[in-house]
Amino acid sequence: MSSYKNQLLPMEKVFRDPVHNYIHVQHRVILDLINSREVQRLRRIKQLGTSSYTFHGAEHSRFSHSLGVYEITRRICDIFQRNYSVEKVGKDGWDDSHRLVALCAALLHDVGHGPYSHTFEHIFKTDHEQLTVAIITSPETEVFQILNSVAEGFPEQVASVITKTYSNPQVIQMISSQIDADRMDYLLRDAYYTGTEYGTFDLTRILRVIRPYKDGIAFSMNGMHAVEDYIVSRYQMYMQVYFHNVSRGMEVILEHLLDRASELFEEDPDLFAYHSQLLIPFLKQSFTLEEYLRLDDGVLNTYFIQWRDEKDVILSDLAQRFLDRKPLKSIAVDSAENPLLDQLRELVEKVGFNSRYYTAINSSYDLPYDFYRPESGRHRMQIEIMQSDGTMIELSQASRLVAALAGQGQGDIRFYFPKEMIQPHPANASLFEEDYQLFAQHIRNGRLIEKTS
Amino acid sequence: MSSYKNQLLPMEKVFRDPVHNYIHVQHRVILDLINSREVQRLRRIKQLGTSSYTFHGAEHSRFSHSLGVYEITRRICDIFQRNYSVEKVGKDGWDDSHRLVALCAALLHDVGHGPYSHTFEHIFKTDHEQLTVAIITSPETEVFQILNSVAEGFPEQVASVITKTYSNPQVIQMISSQIDADRMDYLLRDAYYTGTEYGTFDLTRILRVIRPYKDGIAFSMNGMHAVEDYIVSRYQMYMQVYFHNVSRGMEVILEHLLDRASELFEEDPDLFAYHSQLLIPFLKQSFTLEEYLRLDDGVLNTYFIQWRDEKDVILSDLAQRFLDRKPLKSIAVDSAENPLLDQLRELVEKVGFNSRYYTAINSSYDLPYDFYRPESGRHRMQIEIMQSDGTMIELSQASRLVAALAGQGQGDIRFYFPKEMIQPHPANASLFEEDYQLFAQHIRNGRLIEKTS
Amino acid sequence: MSSYKNQLLPMEKVFRDPVHNYIHVQHRVILDLINSREVQRLRRIKQLGTSSYTFHGAEHSRFSHSLGVYEITRRICDIFQRNYSVEKVGKDGWDDSHRLVALCAALLHDVGHGPYSHTFEHIFKTDHEQLTVAIITSPETEVFQILNSVAEGFPEQVASVITKTYSNPQVIQMISSQIDADRMDYLLRDAYYTGTEYGTFDLTRILRVIRPYKDGIAFSMNGMHAVEDYIVSRYQMYMQVYFHNVSRGMEVILEHLLDRASELFEEDPDLFAYHSQLLIPFLKQSFTLEEYLRLDDGVLNTYFIQWRDEKDVILSDLAQRFLDRKPLKSIAVDSAENPLLDQLRELVEKVGFNSRYYTAINSSYDLPYDFYRPESGRHRMQIEIMQSDGTMIELSQASRLVAALAGQGQGDIRFYFPKEMIQPHPANASLFEEDYQLFAQHIRNGRLIEKTS
Amino acid sequence: MSSYKNQLLPMEKVFRDPVHNYIHVQHRVILDLINSREVQRLRRIKQLGTSSYTFHGAEHSRFSHSLGVYEITRRICDIFQRNYSVEKVGKDGWDDSHRLVALCAALLHDVGHGPYSHTFEHIFKTDHEQLTVAIITSPETEVFQILNSVAEGFPEQVASVITKTYSNPQVIQMISSQIDADRMDYLLRDAYYTGTEYGTFDLTRILRVIRPYKDGIAFSMNGMHAVEDYIVSRYQMYMQVYFHNVSRGMEVILEHLLDRASELFEEDPDLFAYHSQLLIPFLKQSFTLEEYLRLDDGVLNTYFIQWRDEKDVILSDLAQRFLDRKPLKSIAVDSAENPLLDQLRELVEKVGFNSRYYTAINSSYDLPYDFYRPESGRHRMQIEIMQSDGTMIELSQASRLVAALAGQGQGDIRFYFPKEMIQPHPANASLFEEDYQLFAQHIRNGRLIEKTS
Repeated sequence: MSSYKNQLLPMEKVFRDPVHNYIHVQHRVILDLINSREVQRLRRIKQLGTSSYTFHGAEHSRFSHSLGVYEITRRICDIFQRNYSVEKVGKDGWDDSHRLVALCAALLHDVGHGPYSHTFEHIFKTDHEQLTVAIITSPETEVFQILNSVAEGFPEQVASVITKTYSNPQVIQMISSQIDADRMDYLLRDAYYTGTEYGTFDLTRILRVIRPYKDGIAFSMNGMHAVEDYIVSRYQMYMQVYFHNVSRGMEVILEHLLDRASELFEEDPDLFAYHSQLLIPFLKQSFTLEEYLRLDDGVLNTYFIQWRDEKDVILSDLAQRFLDRKPLKSIAVDSAENPLLDQLRELVEKVGFNSRYYTAINSSYDLPYDFYRPESGRHRMQIEIMQSDGTMIELSQASRLVAALAGQGQGDIRFYFPKEMIQPHPANASLFEEDYQLFAQHIRNGRLIEKTS
Repeated sequence: MSSYKNQLLPMEKVFRDPVHNYIHVQHRVILDLINSREVQRLRRIKQLGTSSYTFHGAEHSRFSHSLGVYEITRRICDIFQRNYSVEKVGKDGWDDSHRLVALCAALLHDVGHGPYSHTFEHIFKTDHEQLTVAIITSPETEVFQILNSVAEGFPEQVASVITKTYSNPQVIQMISSQIDADRMDYLLRDAYYTGTEYGTFDLTRILRVIRPYKDGIAFSMNGMHAVEDYIVSRYQMYMQVYFHNVSRGMEVILEHLLDRASELFEEDPDLFAYHSQLLIPFLKQSFTLEEYLRLDDGVLNTYFIQWRDEKDVILSDLAQRFLDRKPLKSIAVDSAENPLLDQLRELVEKVGFNSRYYTAINSSYDLPYDFYRPESGRHRMQIEIMQSDGTMIELSQASRLVAALAGQGQGDIRFYFPKEMIQPHPANASLFEEDYQLFAQHIRNGRLIEKTS
Repeated sequence: MSSYKNQLLPMEKVFRDPVHNYIHVQHRVILDLINSREVQRLRRIKQLGTSSYTFHGAEHSRFSHSLGVYEITRRICDIFQRNYSVEKVGKDGWDDSHRLVALCAALLHDVGHGPYSHTFEHIFKTDHEQLTVAIITSPETEVFQILNSVAEGFPEQVASVITKTYSNPQVIQMISSQIDADRMDYLLRDAYYTGTEYGTFDLTRILRVIRPYKDGIAFSMNGMHAVEDYIVSRYQMYMQVYFHNVSRGMEVILEHLLDRASELFEEDPDLFAYHSQLLIPFLKQSFTLEEYLRLDDGVLNTYFIQWRDEKDVILSDLAQRFLDRKPLKSIAVDSAENPLLDQLRELVEKVGFNSRYYTAINSSYDLPYDFYRPESGRHRMQIEIMQSDGTMIELSQASRLVAALAGQGQGDIRFYFPKEMIQPHPANASLFEEDYQLFAQHIRNGRLIEKTS
Repeated sequence: MSSYKNQLLPMEKVFRDPVHNYIHVQHRVILDLINSREVQRLRRIKQLGTSSYTFHGAEHSRFSHSLGVYEITRRICDIFQRNYSVEKVGKDGWDDSHRLVALCAALLHDVGHGPYSHTFEHIFKTDHEQLTVAIITSPETEVFQILNSVAEGFPEQVASVITKTYSNPQVIQMISSQIDADRMDYLLRDAYYTGTEYGTFDLTRILRVIRPYKDGIAFSMNGMHAVEDYIVSRYQMYMQVYFHNVSRGMEVILEHLLDRASELFEEDPDLFAYHSQLLIPFLKQSFTLEEYLRLDDGVLNTYFIQWRDEKDVILSDLAQRFLDRKPLKSIAVDSAENPLLDQLRELVEKVGFNSRYYTAINSSYDLPYDFYRPESGRHRMQIEIMQSDGTMIELSQASRLVAALAGQGQGDIRFYFPKEMIQPHPANASLFEEDYQLFAQHIRNGRLIEKTS
């Protein structure tokens, strides 16, 4: 019998997938990882968090995405091995002994995510990347035990892909770069599930032109437009889906709700003893990995259902707004420091809302593409296009569209406030008429303005 | 200002939908219903229950489906009004004053569903149809309040569509018949999300040939093949998706898990006091509508996470199998009464499993299509095809394929047992070697057989 | 340098294809065949003949289809070699030395088709299968020269696949059986180009379950429903696309037009000397292969454009009806011998049409699936389903739907006549009022009837 | 009976279309136009000319495209009438009495196209736009007769939309502007048939945000990204499909072939008397409208088949290269005046090719989007985005991507030459070895360079 590491399933196993048609599993290790408790937990965590409140079709989980990233990585390995093995092309080639590390890292790259990831992390100071590494390398997890059966030190190798310290830059870039299996899967998957078409690009064609070289991954010149199209699709998904102002209006509520709970917990921990047991270690800011792995979206929602009946009116109201999808409204602002904002916050207070919990500034910016800028703080690997004589040019040199997006953050800053400010309850309408009017005068074409005369 | 009933939104509102492209909302009543607490709750209940354990892409909710049923109904009303209004075609025509009832009933037809619907109902004796009616007609719900603002008695009218006692048979058949907006949406939606193609049929073409007549809904002869194709698609979805043996292997676990909890609760109610509060009214078999509306998939899963750490080994093990997706395995059997089954159960017990909780018989049958059979207990409205001279023929008279499926249940009976019976833990393999071998000898081509010699 | 036979392209070449995404070419031989004059000619011959008059989107050529059949065959060979090579599974396995024969036969299987194939064959007594063999084996063709460079005798091997005498039944069945690469491509392609969905089936899944055995090709039991779905799709395409009554109404005109030309040519060959040179060998019923290869759809249409201005009113009128898409109308009849038909023909003559050229009986029947019936004249290879223990069952034994279609021709018989019979020119309406009325009385629900009282 | 102008079909007629699902026809006038000889002729003219030599799937005709443009226009009219009728919104609204003009102009906008349009026009000095107007307004055409039955002067009104002199700018912009029904259909259709995805944009969403105003057509701000996506898609289709270097390599051959025929005709008109009758009026540069309407792709191809056997070796060889798809090869050059080009032409002559017929400079440029620049020669209507307060901003002001493409031609200049220059016939390889080497030294990364050292 072959070693566990090289053990192939007697018959390839497939998982039907709406995005990639089939996910193909050939290694026993991969099948065991998929069946592990920590990976199965990802079924209970939505990929897009509050975005499904705007795009109701997008209810898919991180589990689906993880399988997708694995599958794209597998296809890349196949192509590299078929066309560019080291045996064939030498030092610029692909060494297939790195395949299993790549596949495991791809499948596990998001295993440390928790419920409502970014918001949860922000409030409870967790870090999904550190947690991913912890799950991969901690002896108590099933994931570790499976990986460790491959070889001692194997879990650490897989983890080093996540931390970008693995020896082979090709593997690192497959999983994490400006055009990697992770991004390619989520763009296609999120486009499919939201029902939008912006995220669609030609994966088959990109896989035809992707190729290894000694320092990482490049793309043949004749596929330049496919890569360009991917960058543009990514930009459009950010502008239209990920930064959608309504989803952010729900995220703000979620953040304030968890924040309120933390505050109340500090005052009176007993408040949460009856119904929020699994969350208590986080409210205490002291948790074990096992406690972390018990959390999922449903656990938080279950507690919100119970908080809705709590006495604290802010906790109860925010829980209800979140469960029943009552997002805050918003307008675009030029700067988070705009002095007019204080006037708006005052008006919000005047009609009866606590402005700490019922207003917010939310900035969403993304760098659709960046070239190599050693001087900038955050170094990103640029996308290299290989010409027919083997020389490289950087993507934005070859594409006017990418050049237009390169090196500049895209997004906006928005001020969030209760819907009641612009659609008052009939009961309050006359009482605060002047305040509402003043508020309205500062909005035009969805932006904050000085004041309409 | 127009009455609430007729109030149209100043600008039609749309929801992006991957199946229907857009869901179009024109009436304020519909928008308010969508935003109601009871309808929003459906976001937290999966449409397909345990099927997503087999088809990982199918994680969509009953909320998405409800919007889809609404949208198909809206399109049917539009077509009826444009081409077949009573003003135009007389008594066989469509009276558009029934539109709002139809739209509300379509949107709300599943509002009474709870978590893991069929299994939950079975164990806790709830009935989603009765609960749908209760939600629509109980003064404490937001749904009732919205409907009642349309007109007194309006909630009861909407409910009467659900109970099939509404005055207009066209409306009843739109929402519930062998080819209705409900089935049409779920086939298309489930096909889209599972990534299978069996459920795909030509909705646009069916909407071109659907037409009202005085006793209900019929289809023009030139669309006969589109209707035939729908019946075949439905059959294929049942055979390949809804009755998938792995999903049923998870359902069996879920059922036994809830059953075990009920049993333990009877013995010791305190066991659940600390962590399963929202479920207690159901364990007690005495619950209010409000208590019912607090439940969702996440609530049950949260309790399963806590049960996993309980002392009772059956409860704990089944909870773990469910959370970590460890389905029971199965074979097809000709009859639930086959005496060989007792031998298999004995073997299961012998190697250490409680056969009550670790084996099951699961029968899944569906009638893909039925014609009118007054003598049969359950009367179903047959599908009528209208010829160009206005006379009707029943679908199976016109289609050889439908005739092949008509009037006969399709499906199978399966015996479920622990995977360990055919893939023993290495530790036990030799100890119970004979029992495992005996078990294996009763299986051939996935079916129960006498015994291989 | 490797022999021509085994010569692979330095870089795989692809052709973008809307149905299969990419057509992949690895062998120099295949690329050379694609670039040959005889294969390029297929660009100028429509795949669906007169069907594009009904489904305007379906203007694709036999060239596209030929590439598609090649591609599916290539994928089957890949799967067979990867999973079922003789080295691996022995006598039931696939011997990859047959690959090139299979690929060439797939690409060339339709190379002998002429313009408006079936109609042309019928009038001019040509036979596309014989011509395919002739093109493959005649020294004057480019196709022959390429194949002969592979090895002496290789053209004859390829041709023997077409004539079903090749040594390896797996190869024969790939190209020609009840579920072969030819049918699979045309169903998917015709569905794509017509914009219908009936022809859609799950090719990927069929390719997952297809497998060789010593007597040919079989399908694993777990893919039975995918094969069933293919049979149903095929049936639907025949009923709704290939047998569409309007396309047949154009085909009848084309047939009568060519028939009229033949008749006139016999009377006066000079009539065609000025403008129909490329057709003359066929009017004479004596042609060379080279003359055959000069024909295409455009050549015939060019002559029709010139015939439209000819003096013979039947030739001129039929040419015009064909070019300007004026199909004959039709009704369904129970039998071609129905004595009522003579009455209708008489009425057609009475209002001024030559009934030989302006009426027709057209029977279209297809056997959607057949099992092995040695007693029936035309033996067809049945579809075999392989169970997990390796035993076979015949498809209609496993599928109720297929059983419903098996062994019985599906289709209808129609009587064609000029549209003017039911929509008279205003000028003639009163003159022949009685005749038109009599004609109309024999039609009900699109069928010939005795007479409405 | 209603007047012909307003006559609606008793039952809406539909044409199945793979791009728009269905084409809906409600007016008798439209159905009659579709059935006219001049529109039916468009079935015999490919939409994309030589592009199908690169993208074999793209064999669709101008007929399909014409139906598509009609359908998009129809949908725009429906939306305008439903949401923005003059009755509702006043002077910025849509006056539905212009509908029929718009629909007819949409359907007929390409009716004047001939075979291989741009190349044919170039050689024979025809102008498809003038011919479109001629077909619409000349009493001998069926199109004219149908339009004239609507009302006297109606043909001229329809023609004035084509010439952009019609009274209503909304109608003109629907049919011809930077985002019109013509472009929207061809992008979607060409993307569908080529099997590429670049041309895909969200038509449904664009139709949701399009709106009339008094000076034409605008788009709501919330649809800005959909319009942006359309511009990017258009750019990508030009770069990757329409300007594909291989298609242009076939176009160059076609142009030289027709050019050679013209030259030979001048020398000896009798050469074409036997077989090229329908082309003679064009070789003579004196033709009637009726003669023009006899031409189509098949007519030209038929003559090419006969020219292939002519004595003139250039005519014969070019005809063969065209029929058998042997494109010229090419390299990118910075300028058509680059003096190195003469050296290359000399080398082409040296190895035996007539450089007039076997080399060419081909420039392909497109302006993906332009804003209003009164000073530029060719004025194009800019795309206007309407903000929520009703003010307009020009598209490139709102979109960084569009700004990157605006006002600048995109494309390239290529030098075409025989494939033999870089892949010599083995027979010639040694004879002209030095010339071939010299030629090769001027090419690097697909571009003309000084010379590699």
